[in-house]
Amino acid sequence: MLGGKLTERLLERGHLRGENIDAIDLVDLVEAPHESDLCAAHVADLSGPGEAEALIALGPDVVFHLAAVVSAEAEADFDRGMAVNLDATRHLFEAIRHSPAAPRVVYASSIAVFGAPFPDPIPDDFHPTPLTSYGTQKLIGEALLADYSRRGFFDGIGIRLPTVSVRPGAPNAAASSFFSGIIREPLDGVEALLPVSREVRHPHASPRAAVGFLIHAAEMDTVLLQGRPNLTMPGVSVTVGEQIEALERVASPEVAGLIVESPDPVVAKIVAGWPSRFDAARATALGFKADDSYDDIIRAYIEDDLR
Amino acid sequence: MLGGKLTERLLERGHLRGENIDAIDLVDLVEAPHESDLCAAHVADLSGPGEAEALIALGPDVVFHLAAVVSAEAEADFDRGMAVNLDATRHLFEAIRHSPAAPRVVYASSIAVFGAPFPDPIPDDFHPTPLTSYGTQKLIGEALLADYSRRGFFDGIGIRLPTVSVRPGAPNAAASSFFSGIIREPLDGVEALLPVSREVRHPHASPRAAVGFLIHAAEMDTVLLQGRPNLTMPGVSVTVGEQIEALERVASPEVAGLIVESPDPVVAKIVAGWPSRFDAARATALGFKADDSYDDIIRAYIEDDLR
Repeated sequence: MLGGKLTERLLERGHLRGENIDAIDLVDLVEAPHESDLCAAHVADLSGPGEAEALIALGPDVVFHLAAVVSAEAEADFDRGMAVNLDATRHLFEAIRHSPAAPRVVYASSIAVFGAPFPDPIPDDFHPTPLTSYGTQKLIGEALLADYSRRGFFDGIGIRLPTVSVRPGAPNAAASSFFSGIIREPLDGVEALLPVSREVRHPHASPRAAVGFLIHAAEMDTVLLQGRPNLTMPGVSVTVGEQIEALERVASPEVAGLIVESPDPVVAKIVAGWPSRFDAARATALGFKADDSYDDIIRAYIEDDLR
Repeated sequence: MLGGKLTERLLERGHLRGENIDAIDLVDLVEAPHESDLCAAHVADLSGPGEAEALIALGPDVVFHLAAVVSAEAEADFDRGMAVNLDATRHLFEAIRHSPAAPRVVYASSIAVFGAPFPDPIPDDFHPTPLTSYGTQKLIGEALLADYSRRGFFDGIGIRLPTVSVRPGAPNAAASSFFSGIIREPLDGVEALLPVSREVRHPHASPRAAVGFLIHAAEMDTVLLQGRPNLTMPGVSVTVGEQIEALERVASPEVAGLIVESPDPVVAKIVAGWPSRFDAARATALGFKADDSYDDIIRAYIEDDLR
C-alpha cells in the first residue's frame, strides 16, 4: 500500500534529491501494478541467493526498503518473519555493501520496536523493548542499518512509522485494523466494530504523511543524524474517542453512528502493549511533518482514497 | 578468561539452581584447559552447520554464552564479527529452540551496546546506540534473546558487563587494555603507559564480580525480569585518577609511580565514546552485586591472580 502511494508521489513530483527521476524499480514477491513507463516491476524474493545482488546491480541512487511480513504473520510463523524481515534485509544491506555505490537507504521501521510499560510521552532516547517478533526483527534491521551507515557501506536512515491510518482497502487480520476500520467502513456506509475502549490512545499518520516522511528521509542531510540514524516519526496522538469525534465533525454524527462497540479482550490486551504518545523531538527538528490533526487525516483519506 | 574463572567458581561451589553440578561442558574454538573430571572440553565453531545442535543434544540445564570476537577484531574484520557474534549466537539459540528442553540461557552482553552522547548517570531505560560493530552484534543478540525468551523457546537473561578489570595476563590490543594494565603492570614491577587523561571516568567490575553476575543470572527467578531480560550490570564507576589513588592505597605510591602518562589521541577518542556511569537500578534491585570499591577490585586481583 505504502509502496504504491510512494511511487505515485514520486511520479507526480518527478525529482528526488535534486535530480530528475528517470527510473523506478518496484520490487515485490508479486508483480507490482504500475502505469508509468518510468516504472519496472521486478518479482523477487530478497532472501533467495543472488536476488538482492541482481537488483542492486541496477544502480539505484535511493533504496526504499518497505518490505515486511506484518506483525500477525511474523507472530504466527516465526521462521517466515525471520527470513523476510531479518534475513532479506541483511541480504539487501550486504548486496549494497559489496556494490560500488553507497546509495541512500531509507528503511521503514515501526513503533512496534517499543513495548510497554512506557513513560507518557515516550522520549527519543527511550529504549526499544519489542513485544512481538515483528518489532524485534525491525529493531535488528535498525541496528544493522546504523552500523552499515557508520562504516560507510551506505548512507542509511531508519524511520519508525506510527500506525498508518486511514488505510484504504479491506480490513485485515492485524490487531490494529480497527484504527482504520472505524473511519473507513462508516464512510462507506458500513458498520464497523470497535474492539477496544474509547480511552485507548495511539499515534497515527495518514498514508500521505507517511509518504512525506519517506521522501524527506531520502532527501535530508544525514550528517544531521549525528550517528543515530533511527528516528521515531511524529504522529497525531489521539484516543479512539477523539477519532470518533473527528469523524462526527468531518462527516456527520450519523456516519459515526455506524461504529458499534464490540469489546474484544484479546485485541484489547495486544493494544495495551503498544505506545500511546511520543515526543518525537528529533524528527520534528529535522523537518519531518505529521498531519495537523485527526480531522486532517480523515480529510486526506476522503480526498485520496474514498471512491 | 571469564569462562575459566566461571568454571573454577562452579567447581568450588558444586551446585547451581539447587542441584549438584554433575557435568560442565566447555566449548571453545580451541581446547579449553581444565583439571576436573566433571569437565569436558569440546572444540567447536558454533557458526558451522550442526555444531550447535550436537552440543545442545548433551542436554544442558544452563547455557552460559560468553563467546565473542572482541571489539577491535570485530571492527577490523566485519564479516568475522558478524559470523561469530551474530550468526553463531543465532545458531545456538535456534539449536536450543528445536531441542526438547528450554534451559536457562545466560548471555554475556556488554556496555558496548551504548554509544555517546550520554546522560550522567545512564538510566536503565536509555536507548542503546552502539558505536562499534561489536556493540551492534551484542545488541542484536540481546534482541534475539528477548524474543526467544518471550516466545518460550528458552529462559533467557542478558547481562551487560562493565569493563572487566583487573584482567590477568598480558596486555592486549583492545583500546580498554590500559584500564587493567595501569594496575597489573605496576604490581608486577613494570612500567605501564596511560594513554588517556586522569579525568576519564569508566565503570568496572572485577572478574570475581563478573562471575558472580553470571551465577546470579543463572539462578535468579526470570519472572522478575517482566519481559525485559537484558540488564545493565552495576559497576564501580571511577576516574582513572581514582584508580591510581586506589593503587597508591592498596599497594604504594612507589608502585603507582610506575604509571607513565603517554597521551594517545586515537585511544582517547575511542574511549570518549564509551559510557562513564550507569544507574543500574534494575539489576541492583534484582540482587546483582558490584564490587564495593576500586580498592576492593585491586585486592581481588592480588588475591586471585597476582603470582
